[in-house]
Amino acid sequence: MSKILRINTKKKTYTFEDVPENLAGLGGRALTSKIVLNEVPATCHPLGKSNKLVIAPGLLSGSPAANSGRLSVGAKSPLTKGIKESNSGGFVSAKLARLNIKAVILEDKPEDNDYSIIVIKNDSVEILSANEYKGHGNYIVMEKLWAKYGEKTGVMSIGQAGEQCLKAASIQQADLNGRPGRAIGRGGLGALMGSKKIKAIVVDDKGAGKVSIADSEAFKKANKRWVQMMKEHPVTGQGLPGLGTAVLVNVINEAGAFPTKNFRTGRFDHVQDISGEKMVELIEKRGGVVSEGCHPGCVIKCSQVYNDKNGDYLTSGFEYETIWAIGAHTTIKELDDIAMLDRLCDDFGIDTIETGVTIGIAMEGGLLNWGDGKAAIDLIQEIGKGTPLGKIIGNGAAFTGDALGVDRIPVVKSQALPAYDPRAVKGVGITYATTPMGADHTAGYGVTANILGVGGQIDPLKKEGNIALSQGLQIATAAIDAAGLCLFVAFAVLDNEDGVQIIVDMLNAQYGISLTPEDVITLGKSILNDEKEFNKKAGFTKLDDQLPEMFNESFPPHNTTWDFSTDELQEVLNF
Amino acid sequence: MSKILRINTKKKTYTFEDVPENLAGLGGRALTSKIVLNEVPATCHPLGKSNKLVIAPGLLSGSPAANSGRLSVGAKSPLTKGIKESNSGGFVSAKLARLNIKAVILEDKPEDNDYSIIVIKNDSVEILSANEYKGHGNYIVMEKLWAKYGEKTGVMSIGQAGEQCLKAASIQQADLNGRPGRAIGRGGLGALMGSKKIKAIVVDDKGAGKVSIADSEAFKKANKRWVQMMKEHPVTGQGLPGLGTAVLVNVINEAGAFPTKNFRTGRFDHVQDISGEKMVELIEKRGGVVSEGCHPGCVIKCSQVYNDKNGDYLTSGFEYETIWAIGAHTTIKELDDIAMLDRLCDDFGIDTIETGVTIGIAMEGGLLNWGDGKAAIDLIQEIGKGTPLGKIIGNGAAFTGDALGVDRIPVVKSQALPAYDPRAVKGVGITYATTPMGADHTAGYGVTANILGVGGQIDPLKKEGNIALSQGLQIATAAIDAAGLCLFVAFAVLDNEDGVQIIVDMLNAQYGISLTPEDVITLGKSILNDEKEFNKKAGFTKLDDQLPEMFNESFPPHNTTWDFSTDELQEVLNF
Repeated sequence: MSKILRINTKKKTYTFEDVPENLAGLGGRALTSKIVLNEVPATCHPLGKSNKLVIAPGLLSGSPAANSGRLSVGAKSPLTKGIKESNSGGFVSAKLARLNIKAVILEDKPEDNDYSIIVIKNDSVEILSANEYKGHGNYIVMEKLWAKYGEKTGVMSIGQAGEQCLKAASIQQADLNGRPGRAIGRGGLGALMGSKKIKAIVVDDKGAGKVSIADSEAFKKANKRWVQMMKEHPVTGQGLPGLGTAVLVNVINEAGAFPTKNFRTGRFDHVQDISGEKMVELIEKRGGVVSEGCHPGCVIKCSQVYNDKNGDYLTSGFEYETIWAIGAHTTIKELDDIAMLDRLCDDFGIDTIETGVTIGIAMEGGLLNWGDGKAAIDLIQEIGKGTPLGKIIGNGAAFTGDALGVDRIPVVKSQALPAYDPRAVKGVGITYATTPMGADHTAGYGVTANILGVGGQIDPLKKEGNIALSQGLQIATAAIDAAGLCLFVAFAVLDNEDGVQIIVDMLNAQYGISLTPEDVITLGKSILNDEKEFNKKAGFTKLDDQLPEMFNESFPPHNTTWDFSTDELQEVLNF
Repeated sequence: MSKILRINTKKKTYTFEDVPENLAGLGGRALTSKIVLNEVPATCHPLGKSNKLVIAPGLLSGSPAANSGRLSVGAKSPLTKGIKESNSGGFVSAKLARLNIKAVILEDKPEDNDYSIIVIKNDSVEILSANEYKGHGNYIVMEKLWAKYGEKTGVMSIGQAGEQCLKAASIQQADLNGRPGRAIGRGGLGALMGSKKIKAIVVDDKGAGKVSIADSEAFKKANKRWVQMMKEHPVTGQGLPGLGTAVLVNVINEAGAFPTKNFRTGRFDHVQDISGEKMVELIEKRGGVVSEGCHPGCVIKCSQVYNDKNGDYLTSGFEYETIWAIGAHTTIKELDDIAMLDRLCDDFGIDTIETGVTIGIAMEGGLLNWGDGKAAIDLIQEIGKGTPLGKIIGNGAAFTGDALGVDRIPVVKSQALPAYDPRAVKGVGITYATTPMGADHTAGYGVTANILGVGGQIDPLKKEGNIALSQGLQIATAAIDAAGLCLFVAFAVLDNEDGVQIIVDMLNAQYGISLTPEDVITLGKSILNDEKEFNKKAGFTKLDDQLPEMFNESFPPHNTTWDFSTDELQEVLNF
């Protein structure tokens, strides 16, 4: 029987609890959001003792289902002050599932300054001193932890940013090579882990059995269709494995939707210098790895290893959104500088999107010159050093804008907008405005039908059809996040009339139940309703579901503006 | 006929406008709040071009009415992001009234970094380069401006904090000696003036006639009763002139309501070192001035000049709330250090309450040791230098708490709580929670009936009667702020059944109208309703009308807690 592992970070004690009736059947984001809604006082200080960090594998995590290894982490966000779920690949999700742990809940907070690590094994839970890890970046921490607990151990840890409780701090997960290449990036959940003085969580499933599957024959059949569907789709079968998510650099720039110089224009003059094609050319020349998974069992493999010009390892998990945020947004055009900044972000444990956007805001405020990659590297080093300047930058774009008196700050619910301009990809703009998560492309990726021609075609520059697009995607995404599936499976699912049915077949086979595709929609809506309820209790109003006034500016080359009223946007999640 | 002077800070142009029907009969806070509600988009960025800085003398300002020289300044607050009115003494209010200027409205913002000063005279308005003042503190700026435009000229200016658009930045007014001793302190209005690149506003009424009085005989009679009433009341006639507002240090400490070490206890061990009695002893020994007005025509005279141990001028306008914030709150016990910090705040142009509370939060976050006055002076110097650390501190308590990951932050609507613990003076605690201004004792000073026995007696530790107390005071205060009267007149008014009638008589005599005391109440309610409406449009909900969770802690010596529910508090301004 699955259990909930509840850890008191002040008393350094833990309990295993049976899963209560109302949480049965939930996993991943469905579970983290439900527990946060039920247990966290919505008006509490996000770094206070009342907030909780909830970690949950998805419903399919740990099973042989391809791309099912995403780990959901939820809480009241230190950045948005609303509910948050952020997820990543890595090893932890599958291992927790195999240990029959449905969720780990970190509660309370220590009054002293002693850090701990939590080591979860098949027959033990230990809360140990983290003295030897404290103050170190994630690269060293993960290296030490793999050396001590073995390779392929699941690790999630915080760097210097999380220790300082900075609001852009991430929790990083060890990737397939034991490096902090996978980020639970958005919403500052690393700050919350830091406030609870947990430096790392180690998960080792040695001795645990497999995840139990009610009908393994049916499961195997469904998974075979599942893998085949992803291999056959051009995005999941070719685009992403071929160039990583950076395949989008040229695509989005061509669409005139690549926000450049703090969202002033939609095309970047130096786009070729930072494109996916350029990245792969350099990776191949320097002996890196073009394509690998973010977790075991991934068949898309959009991650990579990027070496420096000497052929030495520089960074991995080098995403399109990172390249955009640190690159076009700031007009930095040297890919090696961007890669170094990505590495620093992973090491210090800080969200690359938030940090890239923040560098641009610092440029807007005159702290450094537009396009100066070397100055940006110096700036981000301040986070690691813990200087006052580092604390400003590490608290994100809205905070830095406030510190510097900048009034053009691209945030929703205090979270930085990602790499698609909302005036040129209106379907995703609606998601930025309305998702309970704060500006987040992964919450309802309207780029699909707007730009990629996946799941239909909806004009990205017009209003028509985009509210329905964002709504449908937000519902579907919530369900995908509950399953522990990688969001990118959606590309194939959206273009395959059998797609949702395959997921339902896997769930039914694993749990011996009989869901229908409608049940999946109902689950997605129910997750969003839980999240909306939390935010309402936290004081959010419809005015928080809107883009800032800077998006009333006309946006070249299409010269469109943001034209959805707050009342129109209220319809998006009204169900 | 009175006019509205509207200045476009981008184009450097101005117009005089007739006062529209809907603004006739309004002055001071009534006028600033109405204009802000009507003209400022509630969801705009407070430092963006859509925000406006509205400056208005009170209805009685410029007349011979004693204590009528308060100047109201309103806007969307950079600190609270809600509506704001902050007022101070000085020369500007009476002079604007004599120039028949009912309000000055600063609009738009320049795109370049050139600062201007605005010089308003009887026959001209000039918008001039401020090059020679830029980068200087208020002491030098005011010295230069009096040298250039003459002594007793009205001056309001910003220091380095306002230039940096820091959210705790004040606008300072020249006091009777031409020093920046009077502060439009709360809500960060100096940041807004800085965003509009206005370094100073100079007001010279040479050549202007007197304010017209419809029935000067009746006015004179009413004013005589007015002055007599204030002279006869123990607080306005003896306490305040004798020891300044610092008379309260011992009183509030004795009451166990003097928040010490970031609101942990209600009594400060070293209270004698920072008491009003001690201050006056030092002033007398060092050849300072014990009692002077904050504006011409003041009969209470609670301001003072405080010299250093060499007998040289150190600071003035050394208020109880400043001594508390920089002193007991931080446990700094050296009055000379506190005075130096008060001076630095006036010079850099930053709110002393917000800054004192922020120093305590910096101590909470480990940036400096509790009680270390010298380290606090070094810290505040950073604001003047414009360093990243200065930018953190200068953005106030909530911002600094966020920067440092501190979760015990005493703010409401992001504005720091003043010098009376809400658990031991519940009448003022209700005001902190519910006033549209953010935590502000001057918005409804329940200390009167709770502690001072003025206007009745209501137990400060119990709930009973305190909601009605705060409600009544908030309404009355709004009306007093509209009249341009010093809030301290309320001490006498509350204890005198003729008090409100005298104010009404003066208004009627000046304007040839026939208000009743009920009309004054109606005006107060109408102001609060305007302010509530703006905040609602800006996204505030009832959850913003509550104290932070740290006030659930028991507070010694009375060991009371904050026990008003959010729903109870909604009743306070429900009329």
